[in-house]
Amino acid sequence: MTAFSNTTVKRLRSLRDKKARKEEGLFLAEGLRIIAEARDSGRLPEIIMFSPEGARHPLASEIIAATEAAGGDAVQTTPDILSKTSGKDNPQMLVAAYKQPATDLSSIDRTRAPLWFVAQALRDPGNIGTILRTGDAVGAGGLILVDDSADPYSVEAARASMGAIFTQQVAKAPWSDFLAWLRSGEGQLVGTSLNTDQDYLSVTYLPPTFLLIGNEQQGLPQSYEEACDVLVKIPMAGRADSLNAAIAAAVMAFQVTASWRAS
Amino acid sequence: MTAFSNTTVKRLRSLRDKKARKEEGLFLAEGLRIIAEARDSGRLPEIIMFSPEGARHPLASEIIAATEAAGGDAVQTTPDILSKTSGKDNPQMLVAAYKQPATDLSSIDRTRAPLWFVAQALRDPGNIGTILRTGDAVGAGGLILVDDSADPYSVEAARASMGAIFTQQVAKAPWSDFLAWLRSGEGQLVGTSLNTDQDYLSVTYLPPTFLLIGNEQQGLPQSYEEACDVLVKIPMAGRADSLNAAIAAAVMAFQVTASWRAS
Repeated sequence: MTAFSNTTVKRLRSLRDKKARKEEGLFLAEGLRIIAEARDSGRLPEIIMFSPEGARHPLASEIIAATEAAGGDAVQTTPDILSKTSGKDNPQMLVAAYKQPATDLSSIDRTRAPLWFVAQALRDPGNIGTILRTGDAVGAGGLILVDDSADPYSVEAARASMGAIFTQQVAKAPWSDFLAWLRSGEGQLVGTSLNTDQDYLSVTYLPPTFLLIGNEQQGLPQSYEEACDVLVKIPMAGRADSLNAAIAAAVMAFQVTASWRAS
Repeated sequence: MTAFSNTTVKRLRSLRDKKARKEEGLFLAEGLRIIAEARDSGRLPEIIMFSPEGARHPLASEIIAATEAAGGDAVQTTPDILSKTSGKDNPQMLVAAYKQPATDLSSIDRTRAPLWFVAQALRDPGNIGTILRTGDAVGAGGLILVDDSADPYSVEAARASMGAIFTQQVAKAPWSDFLAWLRSGEGQLVGTSLNTDQDYLSVTYLPPTFLLIGNEQQGLPQSYEEACDVLVKIPMAGRADSLNAAIAAAVMAFQVTASWRAS
């Protein structure tokens, strides 16, 4: 076991910054629950940092040993330093850095799942993580981030994903590349919009279904709506005419899979 | 129009703190969109603070004038001070303080809406705001916060509600008080749980339906589940067995209202 290492601490802490994540090709995950989820999905960290208390949990010590056996770094440190690394008042006893997987479209095998999320220019990393978590629950394959988005490998996104960052595939692409890729195979592109009267409950969804979610502020650009095979509306009863992006994604996803279960 | 007032700035800024909100009975809302939503719901602020740029928008200047006419304070300040008040890098041009409405159960008229949210010990103010926003979209009456919860009048909750803090009713109560109140009239209490095989799609929901949402970490305590008229399960396809609390609330709410539209 590596002794306390200032360099490692600094390196982990730097991963809170997007530029460092890009340069290192790593991202942070925190807490035993998520790190165990990663291991169950066949992923071990490159670096794991833990407090003496953190290492006492049998599952944690198993993962620490497996990380070292696989050539990774395992570093014991203090709760105080863990707290500074995770940026939380209530520190996790484990913080780990993982390799970022490839995020090009060619890494996506659309036959792997009947449902995929496609999100355009999402700004809020919490929404990205929440969509990944929903995707895991609903049996989706992953999330394709179109245009300039928040970083799915940020600490906030990984945290909100509750481990789904390890089970859902993530790809990034400009819209035109995504559209060319989509049309190179089968797939129904479904957009939610206010510019249609078609109720989301009355549509036959055909797998693989790609659910297109608009940006938090503006919704989908018109040309993106025009590229959809189906536009649907989630009827709104209230004064406002919008849902949170992750909420809209979930309402659509559960309706799509419910319609498949019912048929 | 009141001149620049240091006292007012300090007073508004203090409302970022829960203790001050409680003492003053006020809460903060930011940005023209939400402040206009409040006005459309018949609510004017006690205090409104704006930059010269913020006051130039016709709708903003109308609300500023209406606030003064109603005896409120209107204070022009700098974008820098607005930024410090709102705690955001990208400052809103308007920040306003509103009276907190009463949050006792007796203020809730259950016949006003067919659907209500009940949430137990929610920790994340963003989840509270998102549930309010969803409630507005789905035609719910409001949110009853059971046990010790995050503050629905925090800046984060008000922001995530996107104005629904002004259109949805909010009540707070200990569980036993809520249960007594619920049983004093009609209402179906529906809990989501892993401890049932009853699919959420196969249940007949009877208005007024009260959707009970568990805490982010533990879900519902067993005795709370036992008090429900119906327990339902949202089937999960993935590795994880849970949804974000606000997502679960939305999936349930849209299914309940969809079942009513279909019948």
